[in-house]
Amino acid sequence: MSRLLAIDWGSSSLRGALIDDAGAVLEQRSAPKGMLTVDAGGFDGVFEATFGDWMDVPGTRCLMAGMVGSRQGWVEAPYRPCPAGLDDYAGSLQRVGDRSSRGRDIAIVPGATCEHDGMPDVMRGEEIKIVGVLDLLGTGDARIVSPGTHSKWCRVEGGRLIAFSTAMSGEFYALLSRHSILAHSVSDDADDALDEAAFDSGVERAFAGRGLLQNAFSVRTFALFERMPAAARASYLSGLVIGEELRGRDLEGTGAVALVGADALTARFARALASRGVVSRSFGDEAAWRGLWCIDRRRCELEGTR
Amino acid sequence: MSRLLAIDWGSSSLRGALIDDAGAVLEQRSAPKGMLTVDAGGFDGVFEATFGDWMDVPGTRCLMAGMVGSRQGWVEAPYRPCPAGLDDYAGSLQRVGDRSSRGRDIAIVPGATCEHDGMPDVMRGEEIKIVGVLDLLGTGDARIVSPGTHSKWCRVEGGRLIAFSTAMSGEFYALLSRHSILAHSVSDDADDALDEAAFDSGVERAFAGRGLLQNAFSVRTFALFERMPAAARASYLSGLVIGEELRGRDLEGTGAVALVGADALTARFARALASRGVVSRSFGDEAAWRGLWCIDRRRCELEGTR
Repeated sequence: MSRLLAIDWGSSSLRGALIDDAGAVLEQRSAPKGMLTVDAGGFDGVFEATFGDWMDVPGTRCLMAGMVGSRQGWVEAPYRPCPAGLDDYAGSLQRVGDRSSRGRDIAIVPGATCEHDGMPDVMRGEEIKIVGVLDLLGTGDARIVSPGTHSKWCRVEGGRLIAFSTAMSGEFYALLSRHSILAHSVSDDADDALDEAAFDSGVERAFAGRGLLQNAFSVRTFALFERMPAAARASYLSGLVIGEELRGRDLEGTGAVALVGADALTARFARALASRGVVSRSFGDEAAWRGLWCIDRRRCELEGTR
Repeated sequence: MSRLLAIDWGSSSLRGALIDDAGAVLEQRSAPKGMLTVDAGGFDGVFEATFGDWMDVPGTRCLMAGMVGSRQGWVEAPYRPCPAGLDDYAGSLQRVGDRSSRGRDIAIVPGATCEHDGMPDVMRGEEIKIVGVLDLLGTGDARIVSPGTHSKWCRVEGGRLIAFSTAMSGEFYALLSRHSILAHSVSDDADDALDEAAFDSGVERAFAGRGLLQNAFSVRTFALFERMPAAARASYLSGLVIGEELRGRDLEGTGAVALVGADALTARFARALASRGVVSRSFGDEAAWRGLWCIDRRRCELEGTR
C-alpha cells in the first residue's frame, strides 16, 4: 500500500489530507497550529501530535506546502523562479530529513518567485493549487486567481507558471474593517453574510471612483448620514476592496478565470468578475490536495520508485 | 483690549493660540488632550485646565474648530453644506453657552459637507485652514490640499469651498507600516527621516504600477531579497501611498496647489507634486490661526460688535 499525507501548513492554519494511490481523499484533519503559533524547533512536535498516527502506517509519505517552507519555517525550501511547473517542483523538493525525529519520509514543495513591473514577487502554497487546478481542468494554459489575505493572479502557459502578482486585498480589508476609523461603521458579524446589493455597489464604485484611498471614506460618511444600514457596510467595503483589486487588472478580452480558495471568497470574486463580464470557475480544497498528489506522483516517476 | 483664543481641537491633539486685535499670534500652547482622550462631560475641565488663565483676562473670546464640534464632541456644530465660506461659518457658529461652567464666550466653527461621486463627504477643522490660506494668499480661488490622516482635496471659487474629497492616505500608511505584514519590513524610526530617492521611487511606482493593493507587497519582497535597505523602506512606502493619492486625482492642467498642514507632510506632498509637474506652496499652523481670526472678525462685523 502507498499513501500520501498532503499538508498545507500556512501562517494561520494547518490542514492535512490522507490520499490513496488513485488520488482519492480518504480523510482530512486540521488544527489551529498555523506557522505563526509554532516556535522554531516546535514543528516536529506539532506534526507528530497532529498526524503521527497516520504516518505510523507503513508506506505513508508526506508532502507539505505553504509557509512551513519559509526561512522561519521547519526547513527552508528556496523559491523556484518562474517559469515553474510540475517537473520543477517535483525535482526540487526539500527533504525534512533528520529534523523529523522519527525518520519520517517528509518533503516540502518550494514556493515560486518571479519578477514583474521591476519588483520581485513570491508565493508559497498557491503553487500546489495551480498544479491541482490544471489537472482538474485538464489544461496547461489558464489564468488562475487565488484570492485571500494576499491574492495571487497567475498566468499559466504550457503547464508552467509564467508570472504572477500579489494583491494585498484580504489584508487591506481586515485592516480597514478592524483597525481603521471605519471599524466603528462596520460590524464584524457581517463578515460572513453577504449583502449582495451592497457588495455590488462597492464593486461598481471601485470602477467609477477615484480609487480605494478615496472610496473607503464613504463607508464612514454613509454611516454618518444614515444612508446605508449597518449590516450592509461590511459587504459594501468588501466590494470596494475586491473591486479595487479587479480595477488594477487588465480584464479586457480575458477568457474564463479559474478561482481557487475558500468558497465564501471565491463566490465574491466570481460575482465581481461576472459584473465585469468575466466568466469564472471556482475550486476549493480539492485543488490543493490534487496538486500535492500530482507532485508526489511525478516525484515517484522521476525517482523511478513507487 | 480684545483678544481671541483660537483653538484647533482634533481627535488626537489640542492646540491653541492667543491672537491680538491685529491678528498677531502672541502665544501658543498645546496639550495631548485630543478629543478621543476626553470623556463626554470632560471638555469643560480640560478647557479650563489648559486655557483658563488666558480666558480670565477680560475681553478674551474663544473660537474653536475641529472634532470638538462633532456629535461626540463638546457641543455639536452641524456641518455646513458646500458652497461654504467665511460668511457661512461666521453666521452659523455654535455657542458653547452654559456648558462652559464659567460663562466663557466660546463658540465652535461648523465643519463642511458636500456630495461628490454619489457619496457624501465631511471635514472638521480643515475649513478654517482654507479660510486662512485664502486670506494669506489674498485670493478667493484656489486648489487647496490638506494632507493628513484623512487628506482633504478642496476646490475653492469666489472665496467659497465648492467641493472637496477625502483620501484616507495617512491612515492607510499607518495601518500598513504598523499593523500589516509590512510592519516587519518597515522601521518605525524611519518615519521622520525621509530617504528622498526611495520616496521618489515609491511615487514613480504608484503611477507606473497596478495600484497600491499590488505595489504595497513590494515593500516585503524588496526586503526579502535584500534589494532595499531597511532604513529606506518607510520612505518608499510613504511614496507609494502619497503617489497613489495623487494618481486618484486629475492633475492635468492643474495650476499651483496650496498645501496646508504639518511641515514634514507638506514637504512630501510638494515633492511628489513637483515630480508630476505641479507647483505648490505650503502653509503650516499660521493658516489655522489666521482662519479662526478671520472668522471671528467677520462674526464681530455681522453682530455689529467688537
